[in-house]
Amino acid sequence: MDKNKIIIFDTTLRDGEQSPGASMNTEEKIQIALQLERLGVDIIESGFAAASPGDFDAIKQIASEVHTIKVASLARAIERDIEAAGKAIAPAKNRRIHTFIATSPIHMEHKLKMKSDEVLKRAVQAVKYARTFVDDVEFSFEDAGRSDIEFLKEMSDAVISAGASTINLPDTVGFRLPGELYTRTKALVDFVGDRAIISAHNHNDLGLAVANTLECVRAGARQVECTINGLGERAGNAALEEIVMVINTRKDIFGDLYTDIVTKEIYPTSRLVASITGIEPQPNKAIVGKNAFAHESGIHQDGMLKCAQTYEIISAESIGAAKTNLVLGKHSGRHAFKDRLKELGFELENDELDKAFADFKALCDMKKEIFDEDLRALVNSEIAKVEQIYSIEKLSVQASKDGHTSAAITILHENELKEEASLGNGSADAIFKVIDRISGHEGELKDYKVRAVSQGKDALAKVDVKVKFGERTMIGHGLDVDTMLATAKAYISALNSFLSMK
Amino acid sequence: MDKNKIIIFDTTLRDGEQSPGASMNTEEKIQIALQLERLGVDIIESGFAAASPGDFDAIKQIASEVHTIKVASLARAIERDIEAAGKAIAPAKNRRIHTFIATSPIHMEHKLKMKSDEVLKRAVQAVKYARTFVDDVEFSFEDAGRSDIEFLKEMSDAVISAGASTINLPDTVGFRLPGELYTRTKALVDFVGDRAIISAHNHNDLGLAVANTLECVRAGARQVECTINGLGERAGNAALEEIVMVINTRKDIFGDLYTDIVTKEIYPTSRLVASITGIEPQPNKAIVGKNAFAHESGIHQDGMLKCAQTYEIISAESIGAAKTNLVLGKHSGRHAFKDRLKELGFELENDELDKAFADFKALCDMKKEIFDEDLRALVNSEIAKVEQIYSIEKLSVQASKDGHTSAAITILHENELKEEASLGNGSADAIFKVIDRISGHEGELKDYKVRAVSQGKDALAKVDVKVKFGERTMIGHGLDVDTMLATAKAYISALNSFLSMK
Repeated sequence: MDKNKIIIFDTTLRDGEQSPGASMNTEEKIQIALQLERLGVDIIESGFAAASPGDFDAIKQIASEVHTIKVASLARAIERDIEAAGKAIAPAKNRRIHTFIATSPIHMEHKLKMKSDEVLKRAVQAVKYARTFVDDVEFSFEDAGRSDIEFLKEMSDAVISAGASTINLPDTVGFRLPGELYTRTKALVDFVGDRAIISAHNHNDLGLAVANTLECVRAGARQVECTINGLGERAGNAALEEIVMVINTRKDIFGDLYTDIVTKEIYPTSRLVASITGIEPQPNKAIVGKNAFAHESGIHQDGMLKCAQTYEIISAESIGAAKTNLVLGKHSGRHAFKDRLKELGFELENDELDKAFADFKALCDMKKEIFDEDLRALVNSEIAKVEQIYSIEKLSVQASKDGHTSAAITILHENELKEEASLGNGSADAIFKVIDRISGHEGELKDYKVRAVSQGKDALAKVDVKVKFGERTMIGHGLDVDTMLATAKAYISALNSFLSMK
Repeated sequence: MDKNKIIIFDTTLRDGEQSPGASMNTEEKIQIALQLERLGVDIIESGFAAASPGDFDAIKQIASEVHTIKVASLARAIERDIEAAGKAIAPAKNRRIHTFIATSPIHMEHKLKMKSDEVLKRAVQAVKYARTFVDDVEFSFEDAGRSDIEFLKEMSDAVISAGASTINLPDTVGFRLPGELYTRTKALVDFVGDRAIISAHNHNDLGLAVANTLECVRAGARQVECTINGLGERAGNAALEEIVMVINTRKDIFGDLYTDIVTKEIYPTSRLVASITGIEPQPNKAIVGKNAFAHESGIHQDGMLKCAQTYEIISAESIGAAKTNLVLGKHSGRHAFKDRLKELGFELENDELDKAFADFKALCDMKKEIFDEDLRALVNSEIAKVEQIYSIEKLSVQASKDGHTSAAITILHENELKEEASLGNGSADAIFKVIDRISGHEGELKDYKVRAVSQGKDALAKVDVKVKFGERTMIGHGLDVDTMLATAKAYISALNSFLSMK
């Protein structure tokens, strides 16, 4: 094992998916997994196999589709969870079971209602059982940030003897400051020595997840758990892109430490995750925010023209976010289209390329200039398309101030055309109601967002909806130059996702 | 001066406004300034007076409207800038001029093209001249993060002797790590002693602005420069809400250090700034993100029910983001409405209340349940309304797949009704085009965003647009249950802002 290599453990598909509203379907998860592989991530946590049959199947399919990246599943320290994890990741070439139990007094007393010796015994059993499925077992001490250090040492001895090779120390509630985590991590690194890799897993409740993770690395942690765009429960996890770019930019501090991340894939990965989850990084997000490389003030612009380094420490090119002057349009051929997609990180199969090119040509009829952002949105929506149980044939909306607002729609369902109309409080409401009327499924709208994908009045509109059907909350996406058509497409795609899961 | 007090210097209206797309009109700036005063901020940087006549007037009006909060204006170390700053802040009871010059080798050589002794001389002149306008002068060493420490000491001696009482050390390019800034800040704190307050001003390019600021505080900085939601140029500034909540939550580390921030005003302030700038914090933003207090996974929810502290270190109540069960509706009276607004932090004058209550009643006719988010949006849009040079009387939109899409509109302008229709590529495009046709001003759409303010299919739609008219990029907001009407209102409000600035 190279002592200077920082292992990147990405948990976008597990901890990231726990962000309220970030649920993804299996196709979308596979797409992200393959992109994480291109990004050079070492290990992906692909889900929590025992959580539901859907999660189990998604992990199994991810494990079958990726090439050499290591695939992990989370499992509580109980047999049923570990068995599910072991079976779900079985198709992968490289596998890990990541099992955990809480070790802080507050968690042991109130949540587990177990004494510390029982916790230790359960952990040992879990690791031994996990080793019957895989060689590589990671053990996490949940709420390590608030656990007693001496107990963590005792636990480490026990789980390492039982066969764990990675010890993860999560700051589960995002409570610690960098200096404290340096001290705590160093204590465990010194104690464990070469017997196991120490891993950092920091939450962002105080806005310190990245700073904390860097201090853990300085203290000797050689695995970091992180997510794209810092997604995750509550205020999220440490952002992969920030950790990597700090280590790369400040070689004077981090010396020979390195990751295997291909930085040019950072921006494409960030865009893909944002597009699939509908969770957009704020414009002022470090590294991947829309404004991260924008200089607004006259003083800064003047400085930039005289010498870029006056105000720039990372170039947009280095993370694959370079602006291009090459804009495609209706005269662009299939070859130029394919080349541009390749530069954006999309390597499509021939039939996928055919479909994407047809979509591109249709778009050119409506829109003069096609920007990179349009292409990304187009291809992502093509690849991640769910089964078209219902699809739109015609839509018309009549919106007016001081009068009736209505929508009329024709929908194709099982080779049959169905049409209906409905009034609504607003045009979006009318669209949702008429779709409900045709499908017979009443959805509850939980979130509705529209954004222009690129610039100009005729920009593509990307609509993200979150709709609750029965007990399930589904995400839907729609893309069209017309905002209302994109709205209808998004709602129908949520409906289709719901129906295809049944 | 109390040695434990951390002075909060908010620069949302200056550095925050430099975020691409965050331009605000004067009314909006005043509204934010008054809210920052309620929040307990010590000093607001209200703008850069010499930047334009519009900026000068905005600062002057802010200075006239606030009560006791100290008002600062930024000024380069040149007479013209300092004079503009001094005059603009003159109406305020408490005033500061904040002047600066770059001190790093790269900035002095490439941007200023000045030797270090010239820089020092210029700084001294600037402080002396600023002192002819005010007693309180702050001096910033731009790019202090990359400046030579011995030169910074020499500069400090000089500007303190000339009359500066605060020395600010900006990490202008967001390059430094926490440990480095601790050492650098400590060196200046020790050198300067009681002669001046040392201030931290950190940028977030590596995602470390907050961690860096906290280390500066630990090193003895007693002023922190920050913004609401971490707004600012590129990846933004240190987020006020994160700095304050770390210091409050970790009293075991920060001891007797304190700020005068009223934490219950944090969430209302964050919402106001997001609503005005149209820059929404990402859901996983620490403290003020929509998901910051949401627990998605079953394991966490189970733990929360057993004992909140298992997964929660800050309560939503403490920052004024408490969920309420009290939902207003058409039977709610003026009294209940006023009370609820007060709880949300709005204290309206009688005539403002009348207008807001009328809007509320109109909304009740369209929407069964009115949530807190609806009220916030309603009142913010009422208060921040720009002069209605053009206003919508009637709108109808005809959108269809495989057919023409058109918008027809009736607009009131100088007591005259004008009506027109236009085709468009999509319904939003048709709306923008027909408004251009009536006004004779062709706008270039730079950004278009729609979000549902609350839940449900009939939720209010909030539309934010960024439109370039001539050389000016304007922000417009529109609020309506109908997405298309909200779109038209937003575009017209951008147009009105543009015309009222002319």
